[in-house]
Amino acid sequence: MTGIFITFEGPDGAGKTTQINRLAGEIAKLNRKIVFTREPGGTRISDKIRSIILDPEYAEMKNQAEVLLYAASRAQHVHEKIIPALNEGSIVLCDRFIDASVAYQAHGLGISVDTVLMINRFASSGLIPTRTYMLDIPAQESLKRLHKRAGGDEDAGLDRIELRKLEYHRTVREAFLGIAKEQSDRVLLVNANRGEEEIAADILADFYRLLDQQN
Amino acid sequence: MTGIFITFEGPDGAGKTTQINRLAGEIAKLNRKIVFTREPGGTRISDKIRSIILDPEYAEMKNQAEVLLYAASRAQHVHEKIIPALNEGSIVLCDRFIDASVAYQAHGLGISVDTVLMINRFASSGLIPTRTYMLDIPAQESLKRLHKRAGGDEDAGLDRIELRKLEYHRTVREAFLGIAKEQSDRVLLVNANRGEEEIAADILADFYRLLDQQN
Repeated sequence: MTGIFITFEGPDGAGKTTQINRLAGEIAKLNRKIVFTREPGGTRISDKIRSIILDPEYAEMKNQAEVLLYAASRAQHVHEKIIPALNEGSIVLCDRFIDASVAYQAHGLGISVDTVLMINRFASSGLIPTRTYMLDIPAQESLKRLHKRAGGDEDAGLDRIELRKLEYHRTVREAFLGIAKEQSDRVLLVNANRGEEEIAADILADFYRLLDQQN
Repeated sequence: MTGIFITFEGPDGAGKTTQINRLAGEIAKLNRKIVFTREPGGTRISDKIRSIILDPEYAEMKNQAEVLLYAASRAQHVHEKIIPALNEGSIVLCDRFIDASVAYQAHGLGISVDTVLMINRFASSGLIPTRTYMLDIPAQESLKRLHKRAGGDEDAGLDRIELRKLEYHRTVREAFLGIAKEQSDRVLLVNANRGEEEIAADILADFYRLLDQQN
């Protein structure tokens, strides 16, 4: 495996997509193959599963089913897309990965972290990101940005997961912070409650250090 | 939990549906509430997942994704439908359950039995059938019946799982026999390579013994 696997984590509205696009733009200058993907989704089977997970129509979905659907989507994504890309030497940028399951499903829904990790290690055959950029913003700020994105109306346009209460988003943020602290070798915690340029500069500096280490 | 949870297992074409219908007909005479369901499926979310699992279009599906989709479908089914029905005192007749995952996914696909069991115990919160009727026929006979059902053409009308080779079906049958042997307290092995009436008589005799024990 000669590629580099980089994931972006953090709450909705933290600016992950913007930062991934900026980093992708920089990598394009390096003459390296790049694959840009996201979870849940990333392959046609994973996208199909994603559409079930996020459909607000399925309010009756049980927590165990949600955990397993995310893991199923990930299993297909990892084995069909990410691992082959890494084997070809690509830099893979992925919007969300297992840390999101630990935060949203284990901590957020009150399911054992060990169980969620065990299921997801099976799903991903133990694949661990080379580097994770953890974009941190307060839960209140995250929800404010989401509502703005949806056009101002408090509940309009949000998906089933986003509609959950502020308390849930606070729990998720704490979980992300816990992961960043415990796994600081892999995870870079980035203050995302700043301007886009400042955030991008921190990520880029770290990325070039990472690239130096790999060479 | 005052209900009785009965599952039917065995290869495709073993006559599970026929035997479930016959048993359901007998139970109807007892003035007991009865729920008749199947896996994968049984709820609208589970049915949606089922449609992904069985779609011959998704030939690229990875084994890990398949295992997790079956488990997700089961999680929703168990918590939305089976457990509530048992809590209301119903007799639940279910076409396939965890034994099918152990046979088709663990043994059939070469995935660790412990892993498949662990994922499925999470999915079903540890729910174990009161009794399992394991309908046994040789793999060759199972495939012959499937082809006949599909209208004679060897591959026409079979779903993605059914199309797998005879060797796979043989492995699955051996796995079912192994489960029946190891868990003979729960599982009744029924020779299904006989007439419908004979098979039904064996199941019914056991069912009444079971009912006596419960009262």
